[in-house]
Amino acid sequence: MKPYYQNLIIILHGPRYPENIGAAARCMKNMGLRHLRVVSPLNWDEEKILKMATHEAADIVHDAKIFDNLVDAVSDLHFLAGTTARTGRKRRPTDTPATIAKELASMPAHIRSGILFGSEKWGLGNDAIGLCDSVVTIPTANFSSLNLAQSVMIICYEIMMASGKATSLYKPRIATIREKEGMFQHLMEVFEVIGLYQKQTPSYWLQNARRFFRRKDLTARDVKMIRGFLRQIIWAVRR
Amino acid sequence: MKPYYQNLIIILHGPRYPENIGAAARCMKNMGLRHLRVVSPLNWDEEKILKMATHEAADIVHDAKIFDNLVDAVSDLHFLAGTTARTGRKRRPTDTPATIAKELASMPAHIRSGILFGSEKWGLGNDAIGLCDSVVTIPTANFSSLNLAQSVMIICYEIMMASGKATSLYKPRIATIREKEGMFQHLMEVFEVIGLYQKQTPSYWLQNARRFFRRKDLTARDVKMIRGFLRQIIWAVRR
Repeated sequence: MKPYYQNLIIILHGPRYPENIGAAARCMKNMGLRHLRVVSPLNWDEEKILKMATHEAADIVHDAKIFDNLVDAVSDLHFLAGTTARTGRKRRPTDTPATIAKELASMPAHIRSGILFGSEKWGLGNDAIGLCDSVVTIPTANFSSLNLAQSVMIICYEIMMASGKATSLYKPRIATIREKEGMFQHLMEVFEVIGLYQKQTPSYWLQNARRFFRRKDLTARDVKMIRGFLRQIIWAVRR
Repeated sequence: MKPYYQNLIIILHGPRYPENIGAAARCMKNMGLRHLRVVSPLNWDEEKILKMATHEAADIVHDAKIFDNLVDAVSDLHFLAGTTARTGRKRRPTDTPATIAKELASMPAHIRSGILFGSEKWGLGNDAIGLCDSVVTIPTANFSSLNLAQSVMIICYEIMMASGKATSLYKPRIATIREKEGMFQHLMEVFEVIGLYQKQTPSYWLQNARRFFRRKDLTARDVKMIRGFLRQIIWAVRR
């Protein structure tokens, strides 16, 4: 686990709906984050919160810290990023989710950082934005109105992606040229056995076969499967 | 608008909750997508769907096409990507949201592509995965259980990011060296006026000032503001 993970804090400022607090906890859990702070929630209905969080993220809800005002909630942090959909002269975005995630990932371990989200209705006010070192806006099409849970999801996702912890894809081994040439030899044998060369020359069919397989990203496993198929054809014809 | 946008289709296969259909429409609208298909929804409660979609995405809900079975819903597509959280030998993921978004963005305009999401309870079965050209999994921490709306959000977000349509950040103009040198001259004048040179040499203070401003990413506007402040100091001292 990268050090900055342990310090990164998600802060919800004045959330109105308990479902969104729960959804935020679920996002966080999925993306490897741990620390949730909630400032003046309108309705801390723990049953509803936990239902949305699912039992997997219940620990985040139970460990969440609740504050009466924003300044108390962020005063121990070294770096604060605020998220906003409304932009303007006083709130020029300095970051996207991708750029802030990269910045956070590159910070020294002792830096305690927070990401601040405003209420569903109002977002973050100018006072809250004034406390922030970074103003993050999520790129959208012309219409821009993500809900709170959606915004938290995207930010947490980008943090996960920037952490280098993301599970990597399974990459099947691509066939070597030797393996592919073996397959073409095998294929030529089949062409002969099934009598294709009576109509066209071997080089005509080989050329067609090569063109067919070009850029098909054949894996070693594909080649093996194809050769098994060819072997069976030869066996069936010769029987 | 990039051509592939016009053809890209989001397909929900057997969604159980109308709220998730509405949330998907809202994600799509925010991220510039238009076409929604829904296969055998358990509960097409249009009132609940529209409530979550908000009036902004109501058009996507109204234009959504409903199908009885998956094959009918995808048969006119040229390329289908399926999303799954469960991975295994028969469903090795070939893509992440970022890689599939890049692939879709690079496809020729006439390709009609779809992204398929399974039900909240079961995800996509092996039959559905079998229809897919690409199997997409969303990177998560050890625990992996995003809900349907969250998954749609991340995929649509990555498509938006890959489209080149994302609103770019406002980048304030960085100060030139000439501007910064003007500021340092001005600062030296202030140092003299306020009597700093009685204790240390000018070069001592200049060096400190340069070090202070190093890597502060001063903008042209910052320099102007600082010089306004310096001017005022000189005026106040000389008065």
